Amino acid sequence: MDAILGQEIRVLDHGFIRVVDYMGNDDAVVQAARVSYGTGTKSVSDDRNLIRYLLRHRHTTPFEMAEIKFHVKLPIFVARQWIRHRMASVNEYSARYSVLDREFYVPTGDAIAVQSKDNRQGRSTAVSIEQAEVVERSMSESAESAYDTYLELLNEDSGSFKSNEARSGIARELARAVLPVSYYTQWYWKIDLHNLMHFLELRADRHAQYEIRRYAEELLKIVKAWVPHTYEAFVDYRAEAVSLSGPALRVLRRMLAGERIKESESGLSGREWRELAATLQLDLE
Amino acid sequence: MDAILGQEIRVLDHGFIRVVDYMGNDDAVVQAARVSYGTGTKSVSDDRNLIRYLLRHRHTTPFEMAEIKFHVKLPIFVARQWIRHRMASVNEYSARYSVLDREFYVPTGDAIAVQSKDNRQGRSTAVSIEQAEVVERSMSESAESAYDTYLELLNEDSGSFKSNEARSGIARELARAVLPVSYYTQWYWKIDLHNLMHFLELRADRHAQYEIRRYAEELLKIVKAWVPHTYEAFVDYRAEAVSLSGPALRVLRRMLAGERIKESESGLSGREWRELAATLQLDLE
Amino acid sequence: MDAILGQEIRVLDHGFIRVVDYMGNDDAVVQAARVSYGTGTKSVSDDRNLIRYLLRHRHTTPFEMAEIKFHVKLPIFVARQWIRHRMASVNEYSARYSVLDREFYVPTGDAIAVQSKDNRQGRSTAVSIEQAEVVERSMSESAESAYDTYLELLNEDSGSFKSNEARSGIARELARAVLPVSYYTQWYWKIDLHNLMHFLELRADRHAQYEIRRYAEELLKIVKAWVPHTYEAFVDYRAEAVSLSGPALRVLRRMLAGERIKESESGLSGREWRELAATLQLDLE
Amino acid sequence: MDAILGQEIRVLDHGFIRVVDYMGNDDAVVQAARVSYGTGTKSVSDDRNLIRYLLRHRHTTPFEMAEIKFHVKLPIFVARQWIRHRMASVNEYSARYSVLDREFYVPTGDAIAVQSKDNRQGRSTAVSIEQAEVVERSMSESAESAYDTYLELLNEDSGSFKSNEARSGIARELARAVLPVSYYTQWYWKIDLHNLMHFLELRADRHAQYEIRRYAEELLKIVKAWVPHTYEAFVDYRAEAVSLSGPALRVLRRMLAGERIKESESGLSGREWRELAATLQLDLE
Repeated sequence: MDAILGQEIRVLDHGFIRVVDYMGNDDAVVQAARVSYGTGTKSVSDDRNLIRYLLRHRHTTPFEMAEIKFHVKLPIFVARQWIRHRMASVNEYSARYSVLDREFYVPTGDAIAVQSKDNRQGRSTAVSIEQAEVVERSMSESAESAYDTYLELLNEDSGSFKSNEARSGIARELARAVLPVSYYTQWYWKIDLHNLMHFLELRADRHAQYEIRRYAEELLKIVKAWVPHTYEAFVDYRAEAVSLSGPALRVLRRMLAGERIKESESGLSGREWRELAATLQLDLE
Repeated sequence: MDAILGQEIRVLDHGFIRVVDYMGNDDAVVQAARVSYGTGTKSVSDDRNLIRYLLRHRHTTPFEMAEIKFHVKLPIFVARQWIRHRMASVNEYSARYSVLDREFYVPTGDAIAVQSKDNRQGRSTAVSIEQAEVVERSMSESAESAYDTYLELLNEDSGSFKSNEARSGIARELARAVLPVSYYTQWYWKIDLHNLMHFLELRADRHAQYEIRRYAEELLKIVKAWVPHTYEAFVDYRAEAVSLSGPALRVLRRMLAGERIKESESGLSGREWRELAATLQLDLE
Repeated sequence: MDAILGQEIRVLDHGFIRVVDYMGNDDAVVQAARVSYGTGTKSVSDDRNLIRYLLRHRHTTPFEMAEIKFHVKLPIFVARQWIRHRMASVNEYSARYSVLDREFYVPTGDAIAVQSKDNRQGRSTAVSIEQAEVVERSMSESAESAYDTYLELLNEDSGSFKSNEARSGIARELARAVLPVSYYTQWYWKIDLHNLMHFLELRADRHAQYEIRRYAEELLKIVKAWVPHTYEAFVDYRAEAVSLSGPALRVLRRMLAGERIKESESGLSGREWRELAATLQLDLE
Repeated sequence: MDAILGQEIRVLDHGFIRVVDYMGNDDAVVQAARVSYGTGTKSVSDDRNLIRYLLRHRHTTPFEMAEIKFHVKLPIFVARQWIRHRMASVNEYSARYSVLDREFYVPTGDAIAVQSKDNRQGRSTAVSIEQAEVVERSMSESAESAYDTYLELLNEDSGSFKSNEARSGIARELARAVLPVSYYTQWYWKIDLHNLMHFLELRADRHAQYEIRRYAEELLKIVKAWVPHTYEAFVDYRAEAVSLSGPALRVLRRMLAGERIKESESGLSGREWRELAATLQLDLE
């Protein structure tokens, strides 16, 4: 972990994640759990097993006892998804105080994909190389043009307003309104391990938008280096775990007892029936 | 209050605030306080005085017992300031699911002001009418142009990509990256009265950016209609109140005891000395 | 729902739950989801199915849009477990301001059980009727005796301290220190539907202490009356749902593909193997 | 700070505070502020002055960037006040899992005071030495007697139930119900510097109950050692600061302008008039 402390880990075209500081690790989780359960945890003598037990049984409070702070540079539209996680502390670069840099995100290659038909919030297949180039150019030009207007409004590069009284530009807090959400912002972000796992469960998931998922993937690597036992348990009991509803569980039990069940007899909706088949990797009728 | 329930109150050029629902009012605050203090509140028999007492002495929990829900339409850059208030619930329109409308904020008239020299996060005097027109046109054109690119990327208005394979546009979640933060979004926002007052204390303040302050001003009118006793107490003990530091208080006491004090004898920094003079409306040396 | 508004629902020997107020219901959840997803929710046209979809896919924010407030009377040791749920508002009766009543919880009948051997935080079988009577008497007498001391310290019933200068008792905030955690306190508790479900998932669970579970069971009935679609979805996707870890899922898939698997080949720990067998109601080797 | 890390600082008769770990200090606050304000903080070049500026103007988020974790042993009635601060992480010793020790709080000497007449939640003058002895003995005996019952119910010291089937005692989670709130519990408590200051503002205040105030006083010393600039600013702008209401400020300005004002002309209530006089140390009519 100390090997990566302070290192800028690149994400997307201009973004990064940097571990600024941290407090505690797997030991802090174990230590807190042992305070709670007193002599009650003696039976789980092994730290790794205790962590697995805690996560499996959703005893989440000990994971709040480890804390980590990141410096993150990220596009505004990613920041807007990220900030929805309220149980964290944030200090963001202020475009009221300071001028933003000419840095914006442009997707490239496979990241440029058509709208999915069946998933309203997702992407489908990548476009052709030719179309990707058109999209890239179009998005770049639009962002560049907005920045030119920004500078002009700020009057930072001189001479944009002809008359003398226009020497000084308009307020930064106003001028920034023309910048697209592809522009990079940056912040310090501090969060505890429990809430970080919740973030990762949602944002490293395939339903998350590709761009924030890229950050989540790098965060996962950091978690692995920081708290290896917790990381392993997280993969088994959260990231790769599935939830079976009460009705789905009852269908599954009948199957395992040897019964052949059709969708119409399952009591599940068509959608849930297909989800169950996919989860179990079964070719159900 | 019921007269304004459901009404769209216009804010800025295309925004609005609409009260969707609320639970409790001044009575709910009083009721909760009386549970806490049991017979201990008998001495403050009057509801208005009890509310004033609670707010004056920062007994804030009873104010959490009244709740309100708004539908708000607001520019993205305002939404980004607003969302920093974590103790609230939000459901925002998703530009991953649905296409955004061609609606963006453009400041007009006095709202267009030059950057303040002494306050790095503020505006100073308004620009001339001529310059204002230049700014408005510039911001409008930039926003319109971004929306054209957005539609083109979505391929919603057909024919923007020449070849056949470009029939379907790129994913909405990608295309929206070109839109400026002046674009309007909307959300449902639910918050309790205590946290709403905290929001208003910061966002109706003159240091808040003009655009979010406009929303705060309308929210204040709603609070006045909803919980008149709390509103009155909020104005007296929060909005119009000042905080005097320990050192400033000691200087003030000496003044009131008849002593003439110079800045150099005050123990205050130059900045704090001037702030104290402004607060007390004194012409100090 | 309006039929039970304001009604005291009895819990344990002297406790109760009373719905004081609420804001929104299933409709508020649907309404908020439709704002978020815009036209994206058209495909799920039916309210019930939308609610089931939201809960199944852990789109939890719309459930924050419904709010409910309770008046609860409960033993202090239950209150201490309850208060750990931080995302709620509370106004509790203050024993600094007012004198507590002579009301305490004493378990009866089957609630009096021996310490479980294999579950360090649970009860096992009930004691005999004879032993139960001994326990009840012992707990009652201990609580009564503490209250006598309390009154004596408060000097509320006169004459407890002989001399004249002892006329006035010691401060209420001090005297209450002698009262056991079986004594009843009361509070107003306000929470949104999402956080209430989280509370219920943990506190209506069989691992929760019996006494708080009794409150959770009554809260569940209230949720059923208040938001029937959400209640139904909660039962299917939360209360009766099970989580299968990644390793357990891989074992299950092999079983369903016809493979016979022994514990030693499963890659699961003995404990997890037994948990899986119990979940699937299989008689595994 | 590192000198006190891990040290048990004694509080009350059996309690303690121990710093387990911390992340960041004054520098972390400055660092986060400089990210937010970018080049905007250049004018406040000095760290100490930047921290004072932040606290004076309630820019609180940078103070969330420093974190501290304590091990605290405290009476249950103190824990019940403490836990009301929700923005913190807690792992408490569980009396469901483990048996509580025979350790309880008994006030001594001046801490034993009569109920205040004019402040319903406070203490007045200490009782006589003779009465104090009576109180101490009474509280001790009551707590000891409860513990005897606890052990008997647990059947930990053997032979309390006569018959054979009563060998095993009742569940720990039940037996503990007889213990008074004077009994000591312990927990790990993790909080950021901003929320810690909020805690201290309320709990080191003279309105806080003496027992929790003792903990707050020790925490203040730790804060002084940990973040000396923040501590100094906290004392000046929070602990020793006073808030003047709008109406009180207007009265004060008139006084400073030379006007003689009577209570009846002030527009303040009698209570607020007396509070203002006390704040300004004036002998008002």
